[in-house]
Formats: sequence, structure tokens, C-alpha cells
Amino acid sequence: MDLLSIKDPSFLKGMSNQELEVLSQEIRRFLIEKLSVTGGHIGPNLGVVELTIALHKCFDSPNDKFIWDVGHQSYVHKILTGRACEFDTLRQYKGLCGFPKRIESEHDVWETGHSSTSLSAAMGMVIARDLKKENSYIVPIIGDGALTGGMALEALNHIGHEKKNMIVILNDNEMSIAPNVGALHNILGQLRTAGKYQWVKDELELLLKKVPAVGGKLAATAERVKDSLKYLFVSGMFFEEMGFTYLGPVDGHDYEALFENFRYAKKTEGPVLLHVITKKGKGFHPAESDKKGTWHGTGPYKMDTGAFVKSDKAPPAWSSLVSETVRKLARNDERIVAITPAMPVGSKLEGFASEFPERMYDVGIAEQHAATVAAGLATQNMKPFLAIYSTFLQRAYDQVVHDICRQNLNVFIGIDRAGLVGADGETHQGVFDIAFLRHVPNIVLMMPKDENEGQHMVYTALNYDDGPIAMRFPRGNGLGVPMDEKLKSIPLGTWEVLKEGEDGAILTFGTTIPMAMKAAEALEKQGISVKIVNARFIKPLDEKMLSELFRKNIPILTIEEAVLQGGFGSSVLEYAHEQGFYQQAIDRMGIPDQFIEHGDVDSLLEEIGMTTSEVVKRMTILARKKQKRA
Amino acid sequence: MDLLSIKDPSFLKGMSNQELEVLSQEIRRFLIEKLSVTGGHIGPNLGVVELTIALHKCFDSPNDKFIWDVGHQSYVHKILTGRACEFDTLRQYKGLCGFPKRIESEHDVWETGHSSTSLSAAMGMVIARDLKKENSYIVPIIGDGALTGGMALEALNHIGHEKKNMIVILNDNEMSIAPNVGALHNILGQLRTAGKYQWVKDELELLLKKVPAVGGKLAATAERVKDSLKYLFVSGMFFEEMGFTYLGPVDGHDYEALFENFRYAKKTEGPVLLHVITKKGKGFHPAESDKKGTWHGTGPYKMDTGAFVKSDKAPPAWSSLVSETVRKLARNDERIVAITPAMPVGSKLEGFASEFPERMYDVGIAEQHAATVAAGLATQNMKPFLAIYSTFLQRAYDQVVHDICRQNLNVFIGIDRAGLVGADGETHQGVFDIAFLRHVPNIVLMMPKDENEGQHMVYTALNYDDGPIAMRFPRGNGLGVPMDEKLKSIPLGTWEVLKEGEDGAILTFGTTIPMAMKAAEALEKQGISVKIVNARFIKPLDEKMLSELFRKNIPILTIEEAVLQGGFGSSVLEYAHEQGFYQQAIDRMGIPDQFIEHGDVDSLLEEIGMTTSEVVKRMTILARKKQKRA
Repeated sequence: MDLLSIKDPSFLKGMSNQELEVLSQEIRRFLIEKLSVTGGHIGPNLGVVELTIALHKCFDSPNDKFIWDVGHQSYVHKILTGRACEFDTLRQYKGLCGFPKRIESEHDVWETGHSSTSLSAAMGMVIARDLKKENSYIVPIIGDGALTGGMALEALNHIGHEKKNMIVILNDNEMSIAPNVGALHNILGQLRTAGKYQWVKDELELLLKKVPAVGGKLAATAERVKDSLKYLFVSGMFFEEMGFTYLGPVDGHDYEALFENFRYAKKTEGPVLLHVITKKGKGFHPAESDKKGTWHGTGPYKMDTGAFVKSDKAPPAWSSLVSETVRKLARNDERIVAITPAMPVGSKLEGFASEFPERMYDVGIAEQHAATVAAGLATQNMKPFLAIYSTFLQRAYDQVVHDICRQNLNVFIGIDRAGLVGADGETHQGVFDIAFLRHVPNIVLMMPKDENEGQHMVYTALNYDDGPIAMRFPRGNGLGVPMDEKLKSIPLGTWEVLKEGEDGAILTFGTTIPMAMKAAEALEKQGISVKIVNARFIKPLDEKMLSELFRKNIPILTIEEAVLQGGFGSSVLEYAHEQGFYQQAIDRMGIPDQFIEHGDVDSLLEEIGMTTSEVVKRMTILARKKQKRA
Repeated sequence: MDLLSIKDPSFLKGMSNQELEVLSQEIRRFLIEKLSVTGGHIGPNLGVVELTIALHKCFDSPNDKFIWDVGHQSYVHKILTGRACEFDTLRQYKGLCGFPKRIESEHDVWETGHSSTSLSAAMGMVIARDLKKENSYIVPIIGDGALTGGMALEALNHIGHEKKNMIVILNDNEMSIAPNVGALHNILGQLRTAGKYQWVKDELELLLKKVPAVGGKLAATAERVKDSLKYLFVSGMFFEEMGFTYLGPVDGHDYEALFENFRYAKKTEGPVLLHVITKKGKGFHPAESDKKGTWHGTGPYKMDTGAFVKSDKAPPAWSSLVSETVRKLARNDERIVAITPAMPVGSKLEGFASEFPERMYDVGIAEQHAATVAAGLATQNMKPFLAIYSTFLQRAYDQVVHDICRQNLNVFIGIDRAGLVGADGETHQGVFDIAFLRHVPNIVLMMPKDENEGQHMVYTALNYDDGPIAMRFPRGNGLGVPMDEKLKSIPLGTWEVLKEGEDGAILTFGTTIPMAMKAAEALEKQGISVKIVNARFIKPLDEKMLSELFRKNIPILTIEEAVLQGGFGSSVLEYAHEQGFYQQAIDRMGIPDQFIEHGDVDSLLEEIGMTTSEVVKRMTILARKKQKRA
């Protein structure tokens, strides 16, 4: 059928299983083709084609509510709810969002991006439904990886206790972003071998029949034994113990099996967990055979070979640069241990892992645990490197405050994907980290101007013994600058003058330095000479350099690819006023007080006015102020 | 024995069980007596007297490491490690800390205050120990309540997977701060009835013996059946499935039982979970018979009657005021639902719970889940009231950002214990909330000057339909002001002039207003007339009033009982510079960039220079600046 003509999922109701099979193939072809151009989360979506179709056939969205955990697997749902025609714009500026988005469709009832929120959200909706005495099925769909996230476990605990009706779909694809870690995963593994259950149960019943009757007491025991078998062989007991009715495991690519289980789940009182086994990447060989997680989310690729379309000779990725430098230093420092919350591929820790398997811990989707494991290591004089994305570090805010910084422990936090990340959008922009870290006592926070300074900062961090130290670095690749052979420590709280100037000063760091440099060139032509400072330490500030600028009363413009409120620029204001420089002209550029949608970073920067011309404009105004006063 | 003479726990090694029993009683008497004067966490500590003594007898601290989860149950540990003589200063300024503190003793290897961190910390220590090839036992002691916290479950998952040696003591006292909630609690409840296990096992073996041999296949089944019984009757299967060896349950007040299990645990390879049943408040009748959690932590009390020593006719507690106002409004608004993460007593929600049991959810120690349940409710047009302490809201930072604020949902967050909390100290000071919330788009953040304004703010919050709104309020009691009968909405982002003045303006809110008023009186006598503004909206600011002050170039002093970096004062600086008022003299007072220890709030404020005389001094300097310029 013409997928572009789909308006809503009601057409599914009349379809036969055979027609659904055809539809599945059409959707797979559609996804493989469209994503080969735009990129996107191909693996997870190919895995849930049948599951999503079956859900929309058996339930009535939006009255019944699907809550997609993480949300990157909602493409099929988007196609079935009338958005196929927008896939050419997927994850692009002003285009279709790669995650559920409430303004896009009434079928998107919950927005995500971060993992493990679906069960809590569903619980809120269930409470509301029951208080309002409405009828609807609330159906969170959560992956086995997301289930290891603390808040998902908190939710399981509460849902099991409350015993309200909810149908949890456990989408078990044996792989979250990377191969899954943890005991919970082992339990799920056991479930997959549950085929033996019926055989043993039959045998036991035979055995019991052979026993001469010895009265009621024995019979009762026998009953219990049969029950216990259920626990033993279908280890759904984990969920049963939590208070759920466990159904499955069921083949997530078999329509009839899915329908049968949905029907049963609908009739069941209390919370149900339906365990569905799916194959990530199903129907596209390169993605299906992926063991590492490379095909979880990708850029454009060639449909025939599965080769990724990449620009030639790109400079090294920031994640590689950082992880490989840590690896190099680990050769001479046995105290270095790397920790990642389920991001060994994204954080490019594979090399470290293969060289130091016993010093590398992938703890699963468990940011809080990851941060506090690092703290625990540091109490024993180890040098933990916590590799974590800026947006996911939000999950460990309390652990950074309470465990790492309050105890002033030597943890090196590598804050990856800091700043705007682009296509992943609102939920993933790494723009809050400065504002949520700067006010925490004891922490050092820095950002390098290029990958050479980056490697020196890694060295600095791992040789720093006075407490927590964090380095933020952007998504994507370095600038391709020459790399020093010998690593060195950068003196704490020192900035670097990149260009001299007398009429004004721009204080900035990381990704926004090139913009500042370009602006300075333009300003030079207007006769305005601007000093450019690489403010590589966000905390502590270079108070010496700042005081000098203040004394000379040079107008200052701060630029940061992070939220303005409580950000770096704010700290410059604070310092100026603390020192009594109330006359100091300071203007700040950065991310305004709003969530920033998805799209290419350049368009986003343009939209929020973070452009070279804006820098020129602001600096011109500031410089004139000075001239007027002088 | 003389508890004050204890230097370290080595004296325990030679003691007989009988002597230990005597020691237990001495320690109990000591605690009951000392805490009757100082207050403190009496219930939890009376519960772990034998457990702590037994641990120190069987293990060798500090080589073996005890990690006390939450840490409020570490008093017996403090006594045994030479700190009995400091108990008169417990939780007082410069006195003994109520939680483990590394500078106090080498036996305190990990600091806490917040719940559920011990397993992650222990995992870090275990990894370090194994990498360094050291020998030591790592022994986290965690309560059943703390086990529901997401990060503890993340840790169980990871520890079970890694299979390294660790001895987890599950201190199951059937009550965390309040009676426990959640499925996990039910599981632990089942464990307590595990006495039946042996009986059924015997009976089954009898049964199996009666069956005629039918070959190897059946024998194998029988073995499995016996195994499964273990799972069925001692539901340690939850932990066994996670990869732990489950031991217990054992009576936590029975020395011999504890010793036997410790010996076994030490010999066991891989992670062990030893389930110990203790009685909170044991040995002190009022605490032992407490079902509500009142005796978890208390102020001074009378040893004979257990009556609390309270000042007469105190104004209503802030928590009561807020929760009771929510309750009143809930009578006319069926959409209002209250959510607490295990703090129904602290948040004074008992009245609400008894009147609206179906609209009150205690989700257990699960702040992340609590916040996102609130978000889920809000998507269904309900009006969730999330009652949470400032310091614990840190755990839900990401959920506030990603789930509540990003989706702009109508959640009312009641931020209790904002500002300095006093005796609980560093881990509990509610001083970061402004800095970690102010930069989040869409949120409204306010703080009332007194309980009358507080009730109007609750009304404002629950009648606000444009997104998330939070009200912070302090620990302790209101001011005793007259209360309006009729509630009203306070216009968003409006401040209130409490006193007019021309030479300077103090912008402040909440607890620091009285200090500002007193300072203004003193300044008046010096001929300096100061305007006092109740800056009750921290976000959004009253831009109209601010601009007016800026235009008149009146020097401004901001005061906040919260961290200075990125705080309210910062936002005033930001606004001044955004509007181009670069000449505006602004000085800020607040919590400096350091963790604030325990002690009475007045001493703490004195120490950090937040005093009336400092306000006078700063304002005088600012006002002179103005005069000079004028």
C-alpha cells in the first residue's frame, strides 16, 4: 500500500495477517530507504515493525496510550499515525522529530529521549485514568536495556505494589545501545530458554500421580511444587515477585502470537508484563548482524552494502581523542579505571576495553551508579574516568554533588556531547552542564579549544589530585590541528590570549572560538581591535586575567554554547561585582531560556542568534560605549 | 564498661557473648540518654546495636570497610571507634556529625546522608581492592527502604553481574523513614515467613524417597525440584537471580546467629546478601512501638515518658501549612494528587492521606520515579503536588528538566527544607535548588515571606495552568502571622515592596527578609534609607520593578539563603547587563562556594557572614558609592 496515504491506524483493523506481513515488508523497505539518506535509529525501528503494527491493530490509540521508552523506536508508530510523508525531513531542522513529540500527533502522548521514564509516566497516566474512571489501556513499551535504569526499577517496584491495570511491553532485543550488561540481562537470558518448562512440568505431574496418596498435607505440597516450577523454569518470577502477571516470552515478529498475548493481557487484572523477543535491525543484513551497536543509530549509509557515507579524512572524533588519551596514560598509571553507563561505542572506549579489560566497566544504563562507583574508586586512590554524555550526566547530578564533590574525590568526568548535538534535539542538547555544575563546590570545569589542548587537558585531569575535575567536549570531530607528542599539565584556572586587542575582549571557549576569531577579523576592518581569550577554565576563572581586564575597563563579551542563565558569562558578572567593578560593561551570548529543538547545529545557532555577525554587532556596541566614556 | 574509654573496636575480639550482651545494654542506655538531650536518629541506631557490635567483632575495620547507607545509623559505629566522648555535641555546630565523616575517623570510609549510595560506593571499592590485589572485606549495610532507590537497584544489577566478592548486609527493619512501600517490600515480607522452608523441604524429600526409581531423568528433575523449593520458600530468589548468594534471614539481635552467618559469608565466593532482621527503636518502648516513623529522627525528648520537648505554642510548621493548604484545595479540585518519595510524615501529608487516600501516593525512596509520575499525571490534566525536600530533589534533576519542564507540564513542586537545615548538615542543606532550577526553561520558582503568603502561593500554584511551578519553603515553623480566610492568586513575577527607601534597595525573599528589615532599621539611624523588596518570584523576576530600580540607579543588594553561584543575585546581574545597565551597583549575599557543615542555623549564618551587621556594612558601602557619583 501507499504508506504516504496513511492518515491514522484505523485501516489496520480490517487487515488479515497476510496483509500485515506485506505491510511489514513495505515499512521495512521504506525505513531502510529513507534512513539511508537522513540517518536515524534504524536498528531499533526495524526490530519493532510487527510489534508496532500489532499494537496499533489491537489497541485504540490515542484513547489507549502507547508510551515509547527512550522513543527512538517510534518511527513505525509515526508512519502508522500519518507521518510517513515527513520522513525526508527526519531529524532535520524544522523536520520530523526522531522521538515522540506531542505537537506532531495526538498519538504521541509522552515525549522522551532519555531512557527508563516510560513506566513512571505510565503510572501517572494510570492513576489519572482510574481517578477519572475512564477506560483505556496504558501501554509502556520498554527495552531490556532501559529496564536497568534506576528509575525504571523504582517504577516496577511501585507499580507492582499498587496493582493497577497496566500492560508493560518488555521489548527484549538483547542489546540496548551496546550489548547489555547486568544481572537483569542474565535473567532475561534465562527466560529465553524457557522452552523446557512444559516438559519438566509434565514429567513432574507424572511423578506425582505415581505417589500413593498420603493425605491433604502432601497434596498441598504437590501443588506448591508445581507452582514453584513455574518460578524455576520461566524466570518471570522476577516480575511475578514484583507483583506483575508475567506473559511470554513471545516472538515479536509473529503476529498471531502477539495478538493472542495482547488479548490475554487485556483481560488480566493488575499489572501485566508481556515479554516480547525482537531482533534489532531485522530485515536489513548489516543491522541485523551488528553485535556492537554500530547500527543503533547511524548517519547516511549505502543501502546495498551498508557502508556508511562519510566525509574523507575527517579529523579524529572528540570521543576517540579523549578515550585514546586516557588509554595512553593508563599504560603508565595503573590507577586509571574507565566507567561508562552503556556507551562504550559512543564514548569510543573499545580500544581501552580491549587493552585493559579489567579496568573498564560498562555498568549499563545506570548513570547514578556509574558516578558513585567512580567516587568509590577514588576513595581508594584510584583514578576513575567517568565517560558520560552531557545530557545523561543530568541523571547523576545528585551523585556528582553528594558523592563526588562533597567528598572532594579525584574523579575525572569526561563530559561528551557538550553543547548543541543537532539531530537528536531537545532531549539531548548538552547545554545545561555548566549551569548545573558551576555552583557545585570543589569541581574544576574546563573545555579545550581544540584536540591538542584536549589531550593536554586529559593529562591535566588525570594528574590532578585535589578533587573532581571535568572536561566538556563537543559532539563530532576535532579541528585537525597538529598534535603534540609530549603531554603536559595546563596550570589550573589559566586562560590563554589567542589574539591581542584593546577596544574589547571576547571570552569564550571550545566550539565558539572560531566564531569569535572570525568576528574579530571583521571588527578589525572596522577599526575595532578585539582581544580574544580562550577561557578554557570555566571554573575556576582566570581571576588574574579578569581583574586586569576590569582594571583597564575593557568591554567584555562572553560567548558560550550553553544556557545563559547561571552559565559562564554569569560567573564573569559575579566576579566583576564581587570585586566591586560595578562599571564594567559585560555582554553575554549563549543559549536563551528555551529548549532547543533538533536540526543541524548551524541552523540552530542561526536561529538563536549565535552568529559571527551578532558577535560583530554586540562587540561594536560595547566598544562604542567605551569610546564614549573615554 | 566505660564507653568513653573506647579507643577502637579491638577490645571486642576477646569478649564473650555474655559480655557483648551487657555492652549492648550499656550502649542502648547511652544512646537513649544522650539523644534525649541532643536529639538525633534514635530509632535506627537502637535497631543496629548488636549488628554493629557483631560487625566490628568479626571484621577488621578499617582494613575491612563498612559502608553505612544513608549513614544515620552509624552512632554505634562511632561509639565503638572512639567517639563516645563527643556525643554531647552530636549534630551541633563544630560537634560530632550525625553521619559518617571521613575527617572524624579512619573507620568512616564513606560519607553519606542521601539514601541508596552504599552499594555503588562498595562496588568502586571492590574494583579497587581487586585491581590492587589487596585483601579486605567490603561490607555495605543497607536498609530495606534504601533498597527501593533506583541507584541501589542499578548497583545490585551490576554487582550481581560482575560476581566480585562483596558482603551486603540488608538491614531489614520493616520501616525506612516511614512504613515502606513497594513490591520489594512485599518480597522482604515473604522472606520473614521463611520458617516454613525446612518443613516443606523435608516433606518433599520424604515424598521423593517413596517414588519408585524411574531412571536418571527423573532423578535430575527431583534435584531441580528441590532447588526450586529454595526459590519458592525463601524468596531470596530475587537476590539469587541477581547473582548474589542469599543468606538469612537472620535475627539481627542474636549474636551467635550473626557470627555464624558472617563466617559463612566470608567464605563465600562472589557477592553475598545477608538478610538481617532488626527492630527499629529496640530497647526503648516509645521508639520500638512507633508505627509511623515519628521516632526515626527526633529532637530532645523525656527519657521516662518519651514525650518530645517542644517549645510552647510554636507557629505551624511550614510542611503542615503547605500540605494542609493543598488538602483544603483538594476538596474542591478533584484533579489534585499528592506524591511523596517516602516522606509522608516529614511532609505532613498524613491529613491529606486520610482524607484522600486514593489521591495520595507514597512511592518509596524513589525521587526520580516520583517526579515522572507527577509528569505523567499532568499529561492527563491532573494537578500533581510533588512534596519533596530540596536536597532530595537533586536526585530528580533530570526528571525535572527532561520530563516536567521540557514538556511544560503543570506540576506543582513543593520544595521543603529549602535553605540551611541545621543539624543534618552538609548532605541535607537545601541550598542548591535555585541554582539547579533557575536555568531550566519553563519553570516558575517562588518563595513566600511568611505562611500567609505561603498559603496564597499554594493557591497560585494549583491554579496555574501554564507549566511547572515550584515553591521553596524552609525547614521549621512559620512566623505566626495572621492567616487570611480567603485564598488568592499572586500575579506571576510580581515582587512586593515591604519598605520604601531611596539610597539603596535590598532584594530578598523567604527567611532572610527579617534580617534585611533589621538591617534597614539600623541603616535608617545612619541616615541611609533602604527599600526592602520581597523578591518572592525568583523566576521570573519582576522585570518592571527591576528596570525602575536600574533607571534610578539605586544600588542593589541581593540576599538569598542559597548558593551564590548561579543563584538569584546572579539573575539580577544577568538582567541588568541584558538591559544594558552596565553602571548598576549590585552586591550579592548568599552561601559561598563551599559545603556547609552541620550546626544550628544561626551559627552557620554567622560563620558565612550572613548577618544583619554584614548587611548594614555592605549596604553602607553601596550607598556611599551612589552618593559619590551623585
